[in-house]
Amino acid sequence: MFIIGERINGMFKNVARAIVSRDKKSIQELAVAQLNKGADALDVNVGPASPNPTKDMVWLIQILQEITDKPLVIDSPSVAVIQESLPEVKNPVIINSTTAEDHKLQNLLPLAKQYNAKIIALTIDEGGVPKDAESRLELAVKIITHAQEAGLSPKDVYIDPVLLPVNVAQDHSPEVLKALREVKLLCDPAPPTVVGLSNVSQGAKQRSLINRTFVVMALACGLDSAILDPLDDDVINAIKTAEILLNEQIFCPDYLSI
Amino acid sequence: MFIIGERINGMFKNVARAIVSRDKKSIQELAVAQLNKGADALDVNVGPASPNPTKDMVWLIQILQEITDKPLVIDSPSVAVIQESLPEVKNPVIINSTTAEDHKLQNLLPLAKQYNAKIIALTIDEGGVPKDAESRLELAVKIITHAQEAGLSPKDVYIDPVLLPVNVAQDHSPEVLKALREVKLLCDPAPPTVVGLSNVSQGAKQRSLINRTFVVMALACGLDSAILDPLDDDVINAIKTAEILLNEQIFCPDYLSI
Repeated sequence: MFIIGERINGMFKNVARAIVSRDKKSIQELAVAQLNKGADALDVNVGPASPNPTKDMVWLIQILQEITDKPLVIDSPSVAVIQESLPEVKNPVIINSTTAEDHKLQNLLPLAKQYNAKIIALTIDEGGVPKDAESRLELAVKIITHAQEAGLSPKDVYIDPVLLPVNVAQDHSPEVLKALREVKLLCDPAPPTVVGLSNVSQGAKQRSLINRTFVVMALACGLDSAILDPLDDDVINAIKTAEILLNEQIFCPDYLSI
Repeated sequence: MFIIGERINGMFKNVARAIVSRDKKSIQELAVAQLNKGADALDVNVGPASPNPTKDMVWLIQILQEITDKPLVIDSPSVAVIQESLPEVKNPVIINSTTAEDHKLQNLLPLAKQYNAKIIALTIDEGGVPKDAESRLELAVKIITHAQEAGLSPKDVYIDPVLLPVNVAQDHSPEVLKALREVKLLCDPAPPTVVGLSNVSQGAKQRSLINRTFVVMALACGLDSAILDPLDDDVINAIKTAEILLNEQIFCPDYLSI
C-alpha cells in the first residue's frame, strides 16, 4: 500500500507551534520519523488556524524538500493556497484535494495537468457526503470524466470515498468498503483509491484498533493508499500482515522487522 | 459472526491428557471459558492419537452437554466416528466435515439429513486442495448440488474454502478471500461460509496477528463463521470492531467491554 504520512498537519498543536515559530528541526524530525516507519509520501497541511496559509505551506514545502525527495501531498481546502504553492514543489506532487463540486474540478484539474501532479478527489458534491456506495460511485464517474477532459489519466486520480467517524456515521463504513471494491469496475485503467484513515475513529476510545481494523478490511476490498499515522506500529504491522495475506509481499518469518 | 471454539481438541496436549484420564472438570472448564469469551458453538475433536476415537468422542459429547446447550461441532476425519457419535448429541449439531469427495458426500449428507444436522463442507476432492478460487467454487457447486439432492437446504451447508498456512501456501489466502465473496453468488439462499482460522498461521511466529488480520479481511469479504480460539482476546476484539465497521453491531464507546 502507498502510505501517506498524516503528521505534518497544523491540527496537531505541536506542529502548529513549530510552524508559527519556524522550528524547522521539529518538522524535519517528524518527517524523517514517518519516512523511517514506511511512509511513501508526506501529507502537508498548515492547519485551520494558520494566519497566512500560503506562506506557511511554502515554508513547509521548502524545508521538507531539504530532507526528502518523496512525494509531497499538498493538503488545503483552499484552491488559492494550492495554486500558489505548486510552483515551489520540486518533488513528485499530489494535490489534496478536489471534490466533485464544479468549481473545484474546474480550478484544480487544470492545475494538476499543468504541474504534472496527481490529485486526490473526494466523492462529495454540493449536496455533501453521499449516503451510500452507489452515490459515491456516481460522483467518482463525474470526477473521472472531468479529469479525462482535462487531460489526466484515471491512474492519476485517487478516488477518496470519504470515510466518516464510526461513532456518528456507522452506516457509512460498509458503504465505503463497497465503493472501494466497485470503483475498480468503472474504467480501465481503474483509478487508485485512498482513504483518510484516522477519520473513522474520531471521537472513539479505541482509535488504533478501529483504524487498523478498517484499513485491513479496506485492503481486502482493494484499497491502494491511505493517509494515516505511520508512527502507529500496530497499524503498520496490520498493513504488512494484510499485504502478506494478499500475496503482495513475500512472507518470511521475520517480516515485521523488515 | 458465528464463533466456533476450537480448543476442545486432542491436538492440544493438555486436552489429550484430560481425555485419556477422563478429567471431566478440565474439559468442562475449557468449554465454559470459550463460551464466556463469546463462542457460539464448540468444536469437539478427540485428536489424531486417540486409541478409541468413538468412545472418546461420545464421552466428550456427554460431559459438554452437562454444561451447555450450545451447538456441538462433531469434528472427525472418520465417517464411522461421526456416524456412531451423532445419536449421542442432544444439542444442535454440526458435522465437521465432509469434502467434495464422492464417498464422503454419499455417506455424510444422508447422516446430516437424518440427524437434522448442519454440515461443514471443505472444497477438497480426490485431487486435493484446489489452487485457485474458481476451482474452489466448482467444488462448492458440487457439494451444494449433492446436499440439495440429499434433502438439505444450502443454508445448512457451511462451505469451507480451505485456508492453508501462509508460510507454505501464500498464494492461497487471496484465493480463499475471493472464494468467500463469490460463493455468495452461487445460489439463493446462499450457503454460509466458514474457515479454520488458526490454519493460516501454522508455523509462523506472529500467530495472533496473522489470525486476526485474516479474519477481519475475511469478514470484509462476507465470512459468516470461523473455527478459532475465543481465548485470544486480540482476535475477539478485532472481530467485534470489524462487525461494528460493517454496521452489524451497534457502536458504543465501550463496545469492547460488552
